[in-house]
Amino acid sequence: MSKLLIIGSVAFDAIETPYGKTDKILGGAGTYIGLSASNFNVDSAIVSVVGGDFPDKYIELLASKNINTEGIEIVKDGKTFFWSGKYHTNLNKRDTIETQLNVLADFNPVVPTAYKDAEYVMLGNLHPLVQLSALEQIENPKLVVLDTMNFWMDSCLDDLKKVIAKVDVITINDEEARQLSGEESLVQAARVIEAMGPKYVVIKKGEHGALLFYEDQTFFAPALPLEEVFDPTGAGDTFAGGFIGYLTKTDNLSFDNMKNAVIYGSNLASFSVEKFGTNRMQELTKKEIGERLEAFKQLTHFNIKSY
Amino acid sequence: MSKLLIIGSVAFDAIETPYGKTDKILGGAGTYIGLSASNFNVDSAIVSVVGGDFPDKYIELLASKNINTEGIEIVKDGKTFFWSGKYHTNLNKRDTIETQLNVLADFNPVVPTAYKDAEYVMLGNLHPLVQLSALEQIENPKLVVLDTMNFWMDSCLDDLKKVIAKVDVITINDEEARQLSGEESLVQAARVIEAMGPKYVVIKKGEHGALLFYEDQTFFAPALPLEEVFDPTGAGDTFAGGFIGYLTKTDNLSFDNMKNAVIYGSNLASFSVEKFGTNRMQELTKKEIGERLEAFKQLTHFNIKSY
Repeated sequence: MSKLLIIGSVAFDAIETPYGKTDKILGGAGTYIGLSASNFNVDSAIVSVVGGDFPDKYIELLASKNINTEGIEIVKDGKTFFWSGKYHTNLNKRDTIETQLNVLADFNPVVPTAYKDAEYVMLGNLHPLVQLSALEQIENPKLVVLDTMNFWMDSCLDDLKKVIAKVDVITINDEEARQLSGEESLVQAARVIEAMGPKYVVIKKGEHGALLFYEDQTFFAPALPLEEVFDPTGAGDTFAGGFIGYLTKTDNLSFDNMKNAVIYGSNLASFSVEKFGTNRMQELTKKEIGERLEAFKQLTHFNIKSY
Repeated sequence: MSKLLIIGSVAFDAIETPYGKTDKILGGAGTYIGLSASNFNVDSAIVSVVGGDFPDKYIELLASKNINTEGIEIVKDGKTFFWSGKYHTNLNKRDTIETQLNVLADFNPVVPTAYKDAEYVMLGNLHPLVQLSALEQIENPKLVVLDTMNFWMDSCLDDLKKVIAKVDVITINDEEARQLSGEESLVQAARVIEAMGPKYVVIKKGEHGALLFYEDQTFFAPALPLEEVFDPTGAGDTFAGGFIGYLTKTDNLSFDNMKNAVIYGSNLASFSVEKFGTNRMQELTKKEIGERLEAFKQLTHFNIKSY
């Protein structure tokens, strides 16, 4: 069975949406990715860092999902990374209220010995040099997926380009793809980004779905139209976790299987936004995921011949 | 064979995009709808009005596509409706530079006798009372599709609601759906709009595709990701023309066939934006449409079982 190694933040979030607000709750890219991928019952581990203020129960929650937590360093006299943000009515825009890097400022990722031979690697959104440092510890990965964001494009583009050159898949949102490539058309943006290194480019468009580009092929997975989006926090990370979790489980990198991985990414993200934080992901069942897969088929499949 | 009656403007446009600008060229919702639907070789007619300044060659162009033009009134001493607009870099936003209603200001639509028994009716974007007046002349339509826009919601909502109550399908864009319904979620917006009368609600999201809602079923057709969008003018009308043209041709109102109609709408719209004005639609071949249908299948179809 293939192993999945996840590098990403395990953190506190405080979130305000038009539907309510939370105090400090469990958050972080690594958390969302790990919970999402755990639905495929893969052998996974998270590499991260938290402070002495991080509750044991959250570590236990991850462990209960069969995620190895040995690589989550606990800095006893440090404080856990904290982000707070507020979403506006349409939920597509958010303002960051506060970011406290805390222990993440000096994060030196150490990959547990048992996961140095991981076949699948997910580099969650972090400083590119931290991503590089973790990647260098993996012996011979079969597929490396990178998630990043505009913050790193603005602050350390050269470092970011170094890690982009070393990965197989990059997942970014549409505005970030335009910024990184300098191209307005997402088709042209994907081509420019592929030339930077990744064979596959996944462009996430939030409520408008996600595009997968590979050579001259394109696949599109819609977001499921939902009655209510309660909290979009972590949707992109949940997407990435579903994507790489499915690939780790099936261990098949054909383009047809990559399409399936994108659909499972959208599938899991559609649940994540239904409740605050990770609440929906904590209680999600295999039966629900299977039912939603049917909804995705109904939503997108047509049976038509030329007229 | 079923007949298709199209009510809509036949007009002049002057367009500026980041790729260039045009003088007065052929435009108008009725024109785009007619050209698009003509790809299905249906028996169609356009009801509209133009001025004495409207070139015969444009009327001849429509007639050459087997569109009956008897219902296009020519007001000899009047001037044709004229719109000019400018698109910005991302092509999603446009500014109207000038609108001259001209002969459209007193448009009194007269449906040709031979089309009073049309089974399929497309009410293109016009004043709601003009749409109503045309609709009242049709004896017993099988399917009536309404296109409208925010302008009428702002200026004569009560009249608009009267026509909405009488149609089977409404096609509007996402922002208009939110405005008309007062709901942020498109799922909820569609539900509110269905309660106003239409059994089917089609929400157009431009480059983000289109959603079809019917009772508790939803279908999504993506827009084809394109290298370059040259000129988005008329894309929504071309979508509507492909939608109703396919339904007129197949004369089948099952939900599965409505899905196909939405795909053909997206298919044809993806061509329309490739050149200025109606240029691409004038030269389009059945072979090209068939090839693009394959591209839509590749883009959206996946073959996945529960894991």
